Amino acid sequence: MSEPSEDERLARLTLNLVFEPGDPRGTALADELGAEELLARLRSDQAAADIVTAAGPRLSSVQPARMLERATKLGVRFVIPGDPEWPGRLWDLRGAAPLAGRGGPPFGLWIRGARLDQLGPSVAIVGSRAATQYGADTAARIAADVARAGWVVVSGGAYGIDQASHRGALAVRGVTIGVLANGLDRCYPPGSGPLMDAIAEDGAVVSELAPGCAPSRIRFLARNRLIAALGRGTVVVEAALRSGALNTANWTARLHRPLLGVPGPVTSDRSQGVHELVRVGAAALVTSGEEVLEAVARPGEHLLTQKRAPERRRDRLSTRQKQVLDAVPIGVSASTGDIARAAGLGIVETRRGLDQLEEAGLVTYLDAGWRLTSLARAG
Amino acid sequence: MSEPSEDERLARLTLNLVFEPGDPRGTALADELGAEELLARLRSDQAAADIVTAAGPRLSSVQPARMLERATKLGVRFVIPGDPEWPGRLWDLRGAAPLAGRGGPPFGLWIRGARLDQLGPSVAIVGSRAATQYGADTAARIAADVARAGWVVVSGGAYGIDQASHRGALAVRGVTIGVLANGLDRCYPPGSGPLMDAIAEDGAVVSELAPGCAPSRIRFLARNRLIAALGRGTVVVEAALRSGALNTANWTARLHRPLLGVPGPVTSDRSQGVHELVRVGAAALVTSGEEVLEAVARPGEHLLTQKRAPERRRDRLSTRQKQVLDAVPIGVSASTGDIARAAGLGIVETRRGLDQLEEAGLVTYLDAGWRLTSLARAG
Repeated sequence: MSEPSEDERLARLTLNLVFEPGDPRGTALADELGAEELLARLRSDQAAADIVTAAGPRLSSVQPARMLERATKLGVRFVIPGDPEWPGRLWDLRGAAPLAGRGGPPFGLWIRGARLDQLGPSVAIVGSRAATQYGADTAARIAADVARAGWVVVSGGAYGIDQASHRGALAVRGVTIGVLANGLDRCYPPGSGPLMDAIAEDGAVVSELAPGCAPSRIRFLARNRLIAALGRGTVVVEAALRSGALNTANWTARLHRPLLGVPGPVTSDRSQGVHELVRVGAAALVTSGEEVLEAVARPGEHLLTQKRAPERRRDRLSTRQKQVLDAVPIGVSASTGDIARAAGLGIVETRRGLDQLEEAGLVTYLDAGWRLTSLARAG
Repeated sequence: MSEPSEDERLARLTLNLVFEPGDPRGTALADELGAEELLARLRSDQAAADIVTAAGPRLSSVQPARMLERATKLGVRFVIPGDPEWPGRLWDLRGAAPLAGRGGPPFGLWIRGARLDQLGPSVAIVGSRAATQYGADTAARIAADVARAGWVVVSGGAYGIDQASHRGALAVRGVTIGVLANGLDRCYPPGSGPLMDAIAEDGAVVSELAPGCAPSRIRFLARNRLIAALGRGTVVVEAALRSGALNTANWTARLHRPLLGVPGPVTSDRSQGVHELVRVGAAALVTSGEEVLEAVARPGEHLLTQKRAPERRRDRLSTRQKQVLDAVPIGVSASTGDIARAAGLGIVETRRGLDQLEEAGLVTYLDAGWRLTSLARAG
């Protein structure tokens, strides 16, 4: 895509101010007509204004140039398709049907912090606001693990799992992106200002909403599609059966990106939504950052290290020695002949095996019979 | 299958005493030749005795009639294929390749307690001996739920998840079957006597091993195939990466029965084995007895009640009212016009919606603007 024209930029800025984020009629019309043409029609054509009820009247009150000036003072830039840092992944939103009345790619993004095209590949981590300590710890650990591997953690800045994910990435000097449902001059949720500042240092804070805008439920719903569209996949760490995180999960599925769920105690209602996603096959189960990357990385980008249980004493035995050991009864003693029969081996090789096992401290000869030692019973 | 002859019964009893449980050579030969013919060959034919190393010498020392007498005194009966209470499901073991050197259907079963054919359909619940409190509680709850629905809980009597499953079923006066790796006169693990007595009251205690036999590792491995073969499916509640419960899980998969895993905290090594089973697609995730039955019951035998989140105040609103409510910004107040624009609705209908929401206590008009109340923010 070539560098966008100034007219295109102004048109998209105006549309961004005029439309509610993710208004599917607005994004569909822009897609069909182009931003400049849509704006021209909104200005001149009563018919278009009818289709887009709210946009018409709003058009007369917005002041794009002054808003841009205000944003610049705040260190916030407006980025549109065609700009080098525009995330191409957002185009997938064009083909996806709306969810909860929101959809389509944004007209532009308000961004504070690093250039998005200079950050690594990213994965979204989302979940309950009312997270448990377990959920928050797990989100932070997974975020730290993927951040340490050079991946960017995308989340929504909310209390609970979102903030734990951002913090987990920051704690290992990793990069994270906060995607908000309000203007970047506003601090929501209350008290999140210092966290957003920290995120913007090496990462970025992003919103579809211009400075001054307050969050609302539909804006959260619109925002969720951006989180899903910015990550290669989405990890849901805790979500009750009606959690807002499930909207982000649905968007991830709609965009055909990997949806991953972290399990928790079945007694925790905060894990119920995640378990249900896994149970019905909508999400794959993951338990670590390693497994997250295995699911979202392209072939060769990341290799899962084989999960290994700690080595046991048994592992150092020969097959024959194991056969003999496994035939020694538990809790009683047995003769060499009994053990040979149970093992299906001859007397001589059984006796040799028992001698070796005695040397290894796994069996002992006592009261005219062989017994397992406590070492053997410990595995 | 017709009632077995007395010769067949004696032959199977003898083979049961001669072979280690699940000796795949023994079970395969019995399958090929029939029990009587296999026994005759073992008695006469040096070649057969060569194939089955341990059986030949043992043959001369076993005393089937006396063992039967001893068992009868203990209240233990020996049941073989063709007997009315023989569990037909065990025949699936005939087609399955051995695992860890054990396989094939048993020559017979030693049983104490109720007749197996007079119990309901059954499901196996197994897991770690070194269970966590969470695991034990969850196993007990799931066992109670399936037992209350008339299903029989099959488990291995071991400490931890097994005993918690048996107890969970007994606690609701449900029926449970204990499948042991030792003679039914022996008490293993130590202290399990009273539990086994309680199990045998309405359910049954079952073993492939004759009275007097002590458990050993190969006997546990042999026993696990019976647990998997007796249940319509197997639930694994906690299992470390190398847990013995994974052997039962493998048997379940080998028998093409549903394998189900109960998740837990990702921080618990006791849940790691289960998570791995789910992650690689070997097990389906379940969180309740309800979901277990949905997975193992035949169509129509059991219906899952739809999982429902608690109703929220929102649920009682009309679509239009929700649209208006969702457009009210969070943390600031807004004019009717602002809200109408955000909602994409006309002024008149927005105002009507706001009035209704105010009446419902969800918004309030304050300082020349509409605000969400704490009731609305609580969802």
